Amino acid sequence: MAEQNVYDNEEFFNGYTQIRNQESNKNNIFEKPALFSLLPDLKDKTILDLGCGYGENCMEFIRKGSGKVIGIDISKKMLEVARKENSDSRIEYKNMPMEEIGSLKEEFDIVVSSLAMHYVQDYSGLVKNVFRLLNKNGLFIFSQENPLNTCFTTGNRWTRDENDEKIFANISNYGMDGERESKWFINNVKKYHRTFSTTINTLIEKGFEVKKMIEPVPTKEILEKHPEYKDLFHKPDFLLVKAVKKYRTV
Amino acid sequence: MAEQNVYDNEEFFNGYTQIRNQESNKNNIFEKPALFSLLPDLKDKTILDLGCGYGENCMEFIRKGSGKVIGIDISKKMLEVARKENSDSRIEYKNMPMEEIGSLKEEFDIVVSSLAMHYVQDYSGLVKNVFRLLNKNGLFIFSQENPLNTCFTTGNRWTRDENDEKIFANISNYGMDGERESKWFINNVKKYHRTFSTTINTLIEKGFEVKKMIEPVPTKEILEKHPEYKDLFHKPDFLLVKAVKKYRTV
Repeated sequence: MAEQNVYDNEEFFNGYTQIRNQESNKNNIFEKPALFSLLPDLKDKTILDLGCGYGENCMEFIRKGSGKVIGIDISKKMLEVARKENSDSRIEYKNMPMEEIGSLKEEFDIVVSSLAMHYVQDYSGLVKNVFRLLNKNGLFIFSQENPLNTCFTTGNRWTRDENDEKIFANISNYGMDGERESKWFINNVKKYHRTFSTTINTLIEKGFEVKKMIEPVPTKEILEKHPEYKDLFHKPDFLLVKAVKKYRTV
Repeated sequence: MAEQNVYDNEEFFNGYTQIRNQESNKNNIFEKPALFSLLPDLKDKTILDLGCGYGENCMEFIRKGSGKVIGIDISKKMLEVARKENSDSRIEYKNMPMEEIGSLKEEFDIVVSSLAMHYVQDYSGLVKNVFRLLNKNGLFIFSQENPLNTCFTTGNRWTRDENDEKIFANISNYGMDGERESKWFINNVKKYHRTFSTTINTLIEKGFEVKKMIEPVPTKEILEKHPEYKDLFHKPDFLLVKAVKKYRTV
């Protein structure tokens, strides 16, 4: 099983830190509001954050009333920042790949993951572990890159017209689940593509009921401030899913 | 509300009849097996078929044990063929647009629809009606064009390399639900695009639990016989969904 730790690569870490610090990045405008819109009232809730990174969301869960948060991340560098910038007595940071959460002893009301699922090769195994870690009626809420993004293999991502306007998003091998290599600050960042069907069916097969999907696109207000985000109508960057643990009759 | 009846247009009907008669068409190879794989044991089941066309599926439901089938279609021409070629005392064909099923008095164990949903403008209203027509734990099983197909507006559907191989499927306005006009035998065939999220969320909002999605791609055996279908890995033609009526606690 491939556990990938690009975030501890210095070149990657520096590039990533830079875009994360731009206030108007797509995560802040699209992914984060969508993720938080899927959360229930967090009062006294116990939360596991898979791939917590800098721990910003962990801290936000505490601010919203959560009683206990465990944030795990494969990257020591990320957790160093998390412990410095987003520390709280109710947050515990653990250096652990998502693939190993089966070893956790706690039970949780909510398992959250922000933009980490597309790095997981064994999605089915992860979903199974999340199911086991959740209390009755527990929620699994995650964001990931949209399958229309992860499917891409190589070449131009966009077809442009004579005015250099993006007119088509180019997709390839959408129907073929599996590993993709891409360049994101450094070469050979591995991502795992799964169709919408695989993403949803795996949750259902492992005992979840799907409650909502979100593929964020810009509102009129966002477009006025950031007209360049109109391209997200061609191809949304993110997919978010909310699922609830079902008790099965078998 | 737009109820569209292109099937009674003579030019459309003739073109459609021609491709439906090719034995190895994509419907027979991909859509039909996927649709039937989602059906439960049909013994004594009461079925409503939305957009039944020639009635081939209605007849197949009877062969598989269904006790009563109602097939509705907006096209009189289609139903003429259905009554001639797929007639049975347990099948009733009704000339009715899908938008009007609210007027039906019967209750059903299963509502099926093969490749008709993308013609429906008011999907939400239709799903609401289907919910009302179903018995407790009733199933709603449908196929439609894949959202990666319906999203398209205008221009080239494919980017090809120097050997004329299709290397990218070109998608546009995927994130924008709504009407699309396209040419399929005749001009101005209206289809309605909905993202994967809208398709799934609407079912959930109206009281269904989603059980499975399928986006058919070729098997090795199909590829050996029909190598041209490899392009479906770039962009599957169909999406199938199975959902069960949930009893809500509110």
